[in-house]
Amino acid sequence: MTETTEPTEPVAKRGRPGYDQRGILEVAVAAFNEYGYDATSIGMLAERLGLSKSAIYHHVASKDELLQLALNEALDGLEGVLIEESARTGDAADRLAYVLRGAVRVLVDRLPYVTLLLRVRGNTDVERSALARRRRFDRAVAALVVAARDEGSLRADIDPGIATRLLFGMINSIVEWYRPGGPESADQLADDVLTVALDGLRVDASAKR
Amino acid sequence: MTETTEPTEPVAKRGRPGYDQRGILEVAVAAFNEYGYDATSIGMLAERLGLSKSAIYHHVASKDELLQLALNEALDGLEGVLIEESARTGDAADRLAYVLRGAVRVLVDRLPYVTLLLRVRGNTDVERSALARRRRFDRAVAALVVAARDEGSLRADIDPGIATRLLFGMINSIVEWYRPGGPESADQLADDVLTVALDGLRVDASAKR
Repeated sequence: MTETTEPTEPVAKRGRPGYDQRGILEVAVAAFNEYGYDATSIGMLAERLGLSKSAIYHHVASKDELLQLALNEALDGLEGVLIEESARTGDAADRLAYVLRGAVRVLVDRLPYVTLLLRVRGNTDVERSALARRRRFDRAVAALVVAARDEGSLRADIDPGIATRLLFGMINSIVEWYRPGGPESADQLADDVLTVALDGLRVDASAKR
Repeated sequence: MTETTEPTEPVAKRGRPGYDQRGILEVAVAAFNEYGYDATSIGMLAERLGLSKSAIYHHVASKDELLQLALNEALDGLEGVLIEESARTGDAADRLAYVLRGAVRVLVDRLPYVTLLLRVRGNTDVERSALARRRRFDRAVAALVVAARDEGSLRADIDPGIATRLLFGMINSIVEWYRPGGPESADQLADDVLTVALDGLRVDASAKR
């Protein structure tokens, strides 16, 4: 944007002007999601970017590194939520609500990256490492569900493991239909998820609050 | 099973003994889910079944027909729920609960078929036709959500379209982790889904019932 309004401002980019590593990553993630990682080649990315393959290799060592960078983008976001103050102190139920809300926000803000993460099946070392990090995140949330139940905030008649899976089912499904710029903001969507998950859709459930 | 205990009982099967169309379909669906539809060939199925390709073609005309039969299995199940008496008469909220419970049951009973359905992206006529049927089912459930809200049973502060998507997100995610024969029966799982969806996980929400 500043390039248009202030064309003389120096732009800190390596390699061919117009694309930095970030720009290449965005195009790569879109292609991985559209065609699948295996079916996407550096040659296809070069064509989409209007770059030579060697220009791409100036920014990244391999297609594998692009996958790693993309998955990090999703996982760093999710793990970042867990280490925030509000995720670490206070009642478990409040911490759980904070983390679920944060997960929805990361999913919306980093939609293509989380979409890619959710499709990973563990076919390579990079994928297996990403899956391991994703499982650690899930386990941290599951532990919050258990703690919230133990402190008496969450109902005890649903297995915490099942409750956690249903929560993530609801949240992760957002990648299937949410499109940025739609009528629902990330905050509204997070409100909706929290409302359904904690209070349910039934009217007498909301009337008592 | 009866073949072992009563070996002389006549078995009504066409083609080579040991596999009818149903048996071939089961193996095909497992392969489609494991390798993807495109990557699965009739030759691979023949090898898995210990049959010749022509023996398979005795039962089905093409790989496409196997896909069609498999997707029908899932869609017939879901549509079957909609035409049951309890899905068509009574309060909208009760009908909605009945349909959601029925969807969980179909998903659990026909897990590999629904798994396949949820992965369909519309690459062929068979897939597009299946997607259209799936959308009709989703629209029928969305209409129940709207009706339940209009009759005052469901909260009005969540868009019915979003509520429907979150409900299906929760239900459809079951294919990712549910394994038949686990500790949770289909009925229990349906109870859990209904409880979370309608009453929420928070304890004071359940206490008021």
